[in-house]
Amino acid sequence: MARWAIAIHGGAGVDPNLPEHRQEEAKRVLARCLQVGVDALRGGAAAVDVVEAVVRELESDPFFNSGRGSALTRLGTVEMEASIMDGRGRRCGAVSGVSTVKNPVSLARLVMDKSPHSYLAFDGAEEFAREQGVDVVDNSYFITEDNVGMLKLAKEANSILFDYRIPLGGSETCSAQAENPNGMVMNGLPISIYAPETVGCAVVDSNGFPAAATSTGGLMNKMPGRIGASPLIGSGTYACAACAVSCTGEGEAIIRSTLARDVAAVMEYRGAGLQEAVDYCVKERLDEGFAGLIAVSGAGEVAYGFNCTGMFRGCATEDGFMEVGIWE
Amino acid sequence: MARWAIAIHGGAGVDPNLPEHRQEEAKRVLARCLQVGVDALRGGAAAVDVVEAVVRELESDPFFNSGRGSALTRLGTVEMEASIMDGRGRRCGAVSGVSTVKNPVSLARLVMDKSPHSYLAFDGAEEFAREQGVDVVDNSYFITEDNVGMLKLAKEANSILFDYRIPLGGSETCSAQAENPNGMVMNGLPISIYAPETVGCAVVDSNGFPAAATSTGGLMNKMPGRIGASPLIGSGTYACAACAVSCTGEGEAIIRSTLARDVAAVMEYRGAGLQEAVDYCVKERLDEGFAGLIAVSGAGEVAYGFNCTGMFRGCATEDGFMEVGIWE
Repeated sequence: MARWAIAIHGGAGVDPNLPEHRQEEAKRVLARCLQVGVDALRGGAAAVDVVEAVVRELESDPFFNSGRGSALTRLGTVEMEASIMDGRGRRCGAVSGVSTVKNPVSLARLVMDKSPHSYLAFDGAEEFAREQGVDVVDNSYFITEDNVGMLKLAKEANSILFDYRIPLGGSETCSAQAENPNGMVMNGLPISIYAPETVGCAVVDSNGFPAAATSTGGLMNKMPGRIGASPLIGSGTYACAACAVSCTGEGEAIIRSTLARDVAAVMEYRGAGLQEAVDYCVKERLDEGFAGLIAVSGAGEVAYGFNCTGMFRGCATEDGFMEVGIWE
Repeated sequence: MARWAIAIHGGAGVDPNLPEHRQEEAKRVLARCLQVGVDALRGGAAAVDVVEAVVRELESDPFFNSGRGSALTRLGTVEMEASIMDGRGRRCGAVSGVSTVKNPVSLARLVMDKSPHSYLAFDGAEEFAREQGVDVVDNSYFITEDNVGMLKLAKEANSILFDYRIPLGGSETCSAQAENPNGMVMNGLPISIYAPETVGCAVVDSNGFPAAATSTGGLMNKMPGRIGASPLIGSGTYACAACAVSCTGEGEAIIRSTLARDVAAVMEYRGAGLQEAVDYCVKERLDEGFAGLIAVSGAGEVAYGFNCTGMFRGCATEDGFMEVGIWE
């Protein structure tokens, strides 16, 4: 028997001023979802089933930016995306532009298992969801009051393209944002504080098979039709015999760096260990982008890395190690 | 000054029974498009401009499955996708689900240059196209009589999911297809002869900067909303300082193997040469899928590889080498 391990994340790029009670709430949600995975692994569940179950929990909780609680497009709608990959045979499924499917990760799983394709998007993904009989809800189910406020702030600042979750501290906070205190820019446009709270899970089961899944609402105030890294195999999600990886952060930077695949490629082609591969990719592959990732190896190790203020994360291994954290 | 080089493709998985006159036509189109690239490179054009110009030519010719001449969805409509990557800074842009944009590769270029995102799809991509003022045409412009016939055959066979271009030889050919003479299956469904004539171009310019672009109509009789490998950075298209790569074939297999990125990763992480990396990836990464790829190195080499009957391709280098071919 191999040793199981699990890592989860709820997004990289956490606002350094996130209030204490929000930090505590994040940790509670992470701990609860991590426990769902741990219990399933102790029961002998397969990695691909565990990542789906854990990401469903994260999607269903409105705290993070996936499923209920997803970031809003500039039209105020929700367009979600997700992917899943089973390291056993490198099978994969992905969806983008999903607007009524309660758990996008489960639709990605169905694309993998039940469609002749690997990736379905927008109307075609919705139609497939209907054919498969998954739970659907009105788009308004996904829209939280918090996010409506965030979109308003994003529009007022007129340049914010990233999802962000600053404490709703009134106009002072808002104007501080508009002045772009971080001095971050993207394609020449100023960007304010952001915390893309994409969720993901990487697992190796007691048979030594890795799997990973990632789910997101994308960027707050994004253009309709925008696809980020989360649904892209090799960018946001990857799993093979060596490891399983889920990424979060600036999707465009993750895509350019094929971040998830590169962690595995550094292990496969250079013979690096898991943490070494994670450190290399975060340091050498991300150029000016901000992102983070969680990973597990086929041997039952866990690792994570990020080049920004913080990353909501948790991990556990068969030998009893369990941790939930936000900062470095 | 570095040495420029260019490679193009018009799809892998060529029907071994393709009639002689169709083979000649393919070679004429390839030679003409290759010459467009060679002329531009001789004139000192940048790699990213050359790949865009060459793929535009390939899209505009109805012979191949991109732009005009794109494969049809099961609804008889065209949903095109394309991507472009500039190895200089690893900038990239991609589009999917484009239905009225005359040259999808140029829209992908605009996503890279003019949008805050890397990838736009379906209605959002169309809206961005309108904002950018690119040439748009009615969906019927892309639909050729040949492809309407092919879709009919595909539907009659009831299981064909790949684009294919068999000679229109009447019902005998059709029933032979329906019996699936190749014995190929995908997700348990029989697949007939296919030749996904996706197009692509990889270039290194005289400053040593590589770039790549890929464009496709996808699979004949595909589900609406299906996304293949062509728009996915790291799967269908990749460029960095080491090389530029464009892939073609079974999109699902290319996605699982992150084929384009892996050619570069084998060079970067293992120190392999270009042809060695191409051979390794075609042999070791594709598992049961059929695909091919073209590549150029930063040093001005060209290489290609495929694990199927043939691949429409051409290449040229600064020292006068020029070749157009189909079979091994």
